[in-house]
Amino acid sequence: MSEVYADRRVRLRDRCAAAGSPAALVSRPANVRYLTGGSPAGAVLLLGPEEDVLLCPAAPGADPADGRLDELLRQRLLTGGGDPVVAAADVARRAGAEALAVEEHHLTVARHRAMGSVAPSLRLADLAGAVEQLRIVKDEDEIACLRIAAEIADQALGELLESILVGRTERHLALELERRLVDHGADGPAFPTSVATGPHSGRGGHRPTDRRVEEGDFLSVCLGANYRGYRCEIGRTFVIGTTPADWQIELYDLVFAAQRAGREALLPGAECRDIDRAARQILLAAGHTDTCAPLTGHGVGLEIDEDPQLAPEAMGKLDACVPVTVEPGVHLPGRGGVRIDDTLVVRQEADGGPELLTITTKELLAL
Amino acid sequence: MSEVYADRRVRLRDRCAAAGSPAALVSRPANVRYLTGGSPAGAVLLLGPEEDVLLCPAAPGADPADGRLDELLRQRLLTGGGDPVVAAADVARRAGAEALAVEEHHLTVARHRAMGSVAPSLRLADLAGAVEQLRIVKDEDEIACLRIAAEIADQALGELLESILVGRTERHLALELERRLVDHGADGPAFPTSVATGPHSGRGGHRPTDRRVEEGDFLSVCLGANYRGYRCEIGRTFVIGTTPADWQIELYDLVFAAQRAGREALLPGAECRDIDRAARQILLAAGHTDTCAPLTGHGVGLEIDEDPQLAPEAMGKLDACVPVTVEPGVHLPGRGGVRIDDTLVVRQEADGGPELLTITTKELLAL
Repeated sequence: MSEVYADRRVRLRDRCAAAGSPAALVSRPANVRYLTGGSPAGAVLLLGPEEDVLLCPAAPGADPADGRLDELLRQRLLTGGGDPVVAAADVARRAGAEALAVEEHHLTVARHRAMGSVAPSLRLADLAGAVEQLRIVKDEDEIACLRIAAEIADQALGELLESILVGRTERHLALELERRLVDHGADGPAFPTSVATGPHSGRGGHRPTDRRVEEGDFLSVCLGANYRGYRCEIGRTFVIGTTPADWQIELYDLVFAAQRAGREALLPGAECRDIDRAARQILLAAGHTDTCAPLTGHGVGLEIDEDPQLAPEAMGKLDACVPVTVEPGVHLPGRGGVRIDDTLVVRQEADGGPELLTITTKELLAL
Repeated sequence: MSEVYADRRVRLRDRCAAAGSPAALVSRPANVRYLTGGSPAGAVLLLGPEEDVLLCPAAPGADPADGRLDELLRQRLLTGGGDPVVAAADVARRAGAEALAVEEHHLTVARHRAMGSVAPSLRLADLAGAVEQLRIVKDEDEIACLRIAAEIADQALGELLESILVGRTERHLALELERRLVDHGADGPAFPTSVATGPHSGRGGHRPTDRRVEEGDFLSVCLGANYRGYRCEIGRTFVIGTTPADWQIELYDLVFAAQRAGREALLPGAECRDIDRAARQILLAAGHTDTCAPLTGHGVGLEIDEDPQLAPEAMGKLDACVPVTVEPGVHLPGRGGVRIDDTLVVRQEADGGPELLTITTKELLAL
């Protein structure tokens, strides 16, 4: 596996060199993990003019013996509580670097200033989102991890559907789902599990409360597994009781149609905003102008919310091998709503079109 | 409750004014919560020259309807996806502020630069840790929340001790503890629960693995509850099986003696480093120079790791009504170790001395 990480670092180094900066410092944890295979707490990666080195703080909680780390990468453990980014600036300066590109969207002003103090002659440039850009298109090993993460989430959700739900709180259902994710092999939840009942249903990112599931409720669940760092997402909405009300069936069918339109628009070369529009226009045509979610989907990978964004103002086009969510929703204040969320991988039409990773049924189940 | 938050804001405003900056922008979530009672995702607080306003992003996941927020505080919901710190810079500029103090230890370089672009005439000063300083000494309402958080953690731990442990994995025990925390009324775990068995035991911040509990193991557990935002911490070490080995009893007694020395040194006016030394010298005298934890304890509150630090290089003295952990430990590589961790509140001797919040027994239990 080490070649994978070394190869990614070569690509980043080439980009930096082309931008005039032979040295770069990567501090955002998901980016460090992408380039090294591991991310001990607080560790930063210096792509030096001569060699690469991972600088790890000796702080409590740091675990430099991360077994998945690229073994060929030199590691340096800082003793005495120093900030690794400051140590990195010093290393770069001693190695004769004139400029160092840093992640200005991650580094704080205070840390940036401390770097400048230790190496005043070093010009600090902006690496911006260079690593995030590299991360958008996944290799097949990464997609395999996402596929397993999705299987785990499907299993956890499937088991929940077989249990008795009425009378249980959102908070307990969320915890139960997270336990089942780990039971099935997840390293943990991909993000805080959302369980939303009745008037809460259909709201994106709802934080579980002590409200209990009641007969007649919509129940929206959104969960995901973290498998070897890779995070997927699945969301479904169910009805509690035997017969959904007419408004529930109508709203469900509408959101389902929007979600299908979004999924079907996922092809290499498609504009990100057009995916959003494909789903959104169905909701808008039904009069849901203020009640639908602000974005239709987003990339997933080492973080649960990555580029690309599938939103009205989004720029750029989709590539093959980009995993994204498609998750339109409608929330009617006071009544509740519907959200349907899948993780898919963009694929060429010749390869069968979008690959659905989260395969739990999207029929409206009455539980 | 609103007066509490308004009063805290007045104290902060006074400090800022004294430092020459009539306006301040608070972006660190725990600081926003301390000053407003709530922290909708991404919200920032502007202490303006004229009035205070909470700026909330309209991003997905944001929940501006945080019921605990100070009702008297004006809120502004940003539509269109703008960054609240940039909007705040604009508001301050329009209100005629010449300078705005920001949290340079929290704001990224990129956000700081965007603020400068929208308001080039506004001088951006550094608020530094002014809010963190205010947060160190707790009022009795805050301590009451910590006391409940500690009770919850004691209950969750007590129940675990009554269950069968041999054969279960660290990961499952950690999840079980977190479920029990919520069962007993926690809003969630205060931090990721640590369960460490056998050779992992006694290591600070150990992340649970799939290793199973075995007869003869040391078992170290560290957990805490989040109750209304306030976070406590308790850590205990047990022996699995009927009879601890001699080396286990010896090591346990040593760490216990160190922990007691640390607890007994907690008095208003004591130097933070002296608390550390009281505990550490007992471990050092027994030859544990490289095997003991780098710091003896830390403050707790709205974050699990706050000032003051109880460490060899720490500056400053303890005040009354400061809650801290005392958590010395020894980890012998390959064999395991012991960690004992309590949350206590510093109190005057006349008030009975340090108040122990986490009351689970510290006898060496064989489970």
